[in-house]
Amino acid sequence: MTSTDHTPTSTTGTLAEAQIGMDIGGTKTAGLVLDRDGRIEAEVTVRTPSGIDGVLDTAAQVVATLAERTGRTVQDFASIGVGVPGQVDRAKGYLRYAYNIGIEQIDLAAQIEKRTGIPVSIDNDVTAAAIGAVHLMQLGGTVAYLNLGTGLAAGYVVDGLPIRGETGVAGEIGHLPIDSLGRPCPCGQFGCLETVASGSGLKTYWPAGGDHPGRVLLSAIAAGDADAQFALDHLVEGAASAIRVLGFTLDPGTLVIGGGLRLVGDPVIEGIRSTLRRWEAESPFFAQLHMSERIQVLPEDSPAAAVGAAIASRS
Amino acid sequence: MTSTDHTPTSTTGTLAEAQIGMDIGGTKTAGLVLDRDGRIEAEVTVRTPSGIDGVLDTAAQVVATLAERTGRTVQDFASIGVGVPGQVDRAKGYLRYAYNIGIEQIDLAAQIEKRTGIPVSIDNDVTAAAIGAVHLMQLGGTVAYLNLGTGLAAGYVVDGLPIRGETGVAGEIGHLPIDSLGRPCPCGQFGCLETVASGSGLKTYWPAGGDHPGRVLLSAIAAGDADAQFALDHLVEGAASAIRVLGFTLDPGTLVIGGGLRLVGDPVIEGIRSTLRRWEAESPFFAQLHMSERIQVLPEDSPAAAVGAAIASRS
Repeated sequence: MTSTDHTPTSTTGTLAEAQIGMDIGGTKTAGLVLDRDGRIEAEVTVRTPSGIDGVLDTAAQVVATLAERTGRTVQDFASIGVGVPGQVDRAKGYLRYAYNIGIEQIDLAAQIEKRTGIPVSIDNDVTAAAIGAVHLMQLGGTVAYLNLGTGLAAGYVVDGLPIRGETGVAGEIGHLPIDSLGRPCPCGQFGCLETVASGSGLKTYWPAGGDHPGRVLLSAIAAGDADAQFALDHLVEGAASAIRVLGFTLDPGTLVIGGGLRLVGDPVIEGIRSTLRRWEAESPFFAQLHMSERIQVLPEDSPAAAVGAAIASRS
Repeated sequence: MTSTDHTPTSTTGTLAEAQIGMDIGGTKTAGLVLDRDGRIEAEVTVRTPSGIDGVLDTAAQVVATLAERTGRTVQDFASIGVGVPGQVDRAKGYLRYAYNIGIEQIDLAAQIEKRTGIPVSIDNDVTAAAIGAVHLMQLGGTVAYLNLGTGLAAGYVVDGLPIRGETGVAGEIGHLPIDSLGRPCPCGQFGCLETVASGSGLKTYWPAGGDHPGRVLLSAIAAGDADAQFALDHLVEGAASAIRVLGFTLDPGTLVIGGGLRLVGDPVIEGIRSTLRRWEAESPFFAQLHMSERIQVLPEDSPAAAVGAAIASRS
């Protein structure tokens, strides 16, 4: 770590001990600076153009903007952590199958390092969000993070250590088939959890909801749209099933619900809790997990994935 | 740790650094001495009488026998690790719901400590077997252990660290419902994995198989018993489903199959592999986990749970 003669903007850390965290998503990229005490010093959000060049330009631009806003040069940062959708080989810094940012495969860490000159680590965005949620919500023990977004996936942190699996695929529970009579999933299987408990599932069950069905779901239900109600019921039951899977496999003391669909609010969150309570009443064995009481919701506008990516870049 | 003037029976360790490991099961209790290099120095197996007194007497007897066989006094052992079925609160040394050894609840660690005078740690038997399998089979990375026994459950070791969950229930995937139209499970749910992929599942599908259906399954199939074939097919498909659950949730680099039903042999093990290969051919997303290639089988007569319990008693 190099010393610097810039005036620190934080009273507790030297500039060189700060990290940049970045969450590259399908529509926007969120970046932030985390100081050595884990506090957010500056944030920026920009649109993500699709494809390799767009993503790399965006990453470089976010880094430059954060340097400028915190009175640093880019080289003053200790590291950059990047959360991305897709299959991440963290050891090699390699990203595959990141279709919603228009990338088939890329040596992402090396490419961002080349443009910025500082060490880059990459992580699956849901794992990064799990790490960030643990930090921001001050959680300990066994934590599972369930991302109820366009897709469905989970991340885990156990006693402070992220669990990523052998090839970075741990937590892809959206593609667990739970109903052999269910709908076909683009993954090639049938009745995957994601076909019901996700934004893409909502679209299938309720095409009238358009591209962002979560935003108009409650008003449609209030107006008497039976298909919207049906889609919500399936979403809630599917999400509760996902939580049951996480309960029996990992026994998390805290189950954090994140992702855009959590913002639908009580009809989703309380719906999940009451579904779990019903199942707990039916099964003492399931009841011992207390999953209905272990649910917490990631606060709105929480930059969990960017924070988690920054933290993960330290190790 | 106290020093001792007994002659060491191992050339590499002092006596006081040895641990006792014990696997208390429904029919028998296996005990062994693990030296400081992790080698098995002595083994003993005795019947397990049901109920609290029977279990505690058995534990004390196993410890005394192992001391005698290795030329030690009981106090020469550094610790005792015990693997038991049921819900284990490891921190408190408390065991609940261990119905197949006839125990509702007990402060097991304290009770065995009282009878032996040395520190005792307890662990769920499947988690202990996972730890032991990692040691005996020299595995690393993310390892899941699937116990195909009377019941169905899993244990995990990630980079050498056992994952037990917040309340010791992690890995109870036998009670994950996978088929809402499936058979009722004693746990209160329907279509749990354990209702098909276990010894108890075999009994339900093939009552003619008696109390140990796994031992006579292949000969019955060879003799043309269609029910036995049907039960085997369900067992194989259910076990493959359990492995798919473990794949998508944990992405284990190695999936060890343990438990008595593994000894049915190729019709089970190769049946599982070919079922997974069929699913991999249907889904590129599932194929990326390579689960069909990641399966290993715990060797016959491997005392994995006792070894794992001994190792876990060190920390």
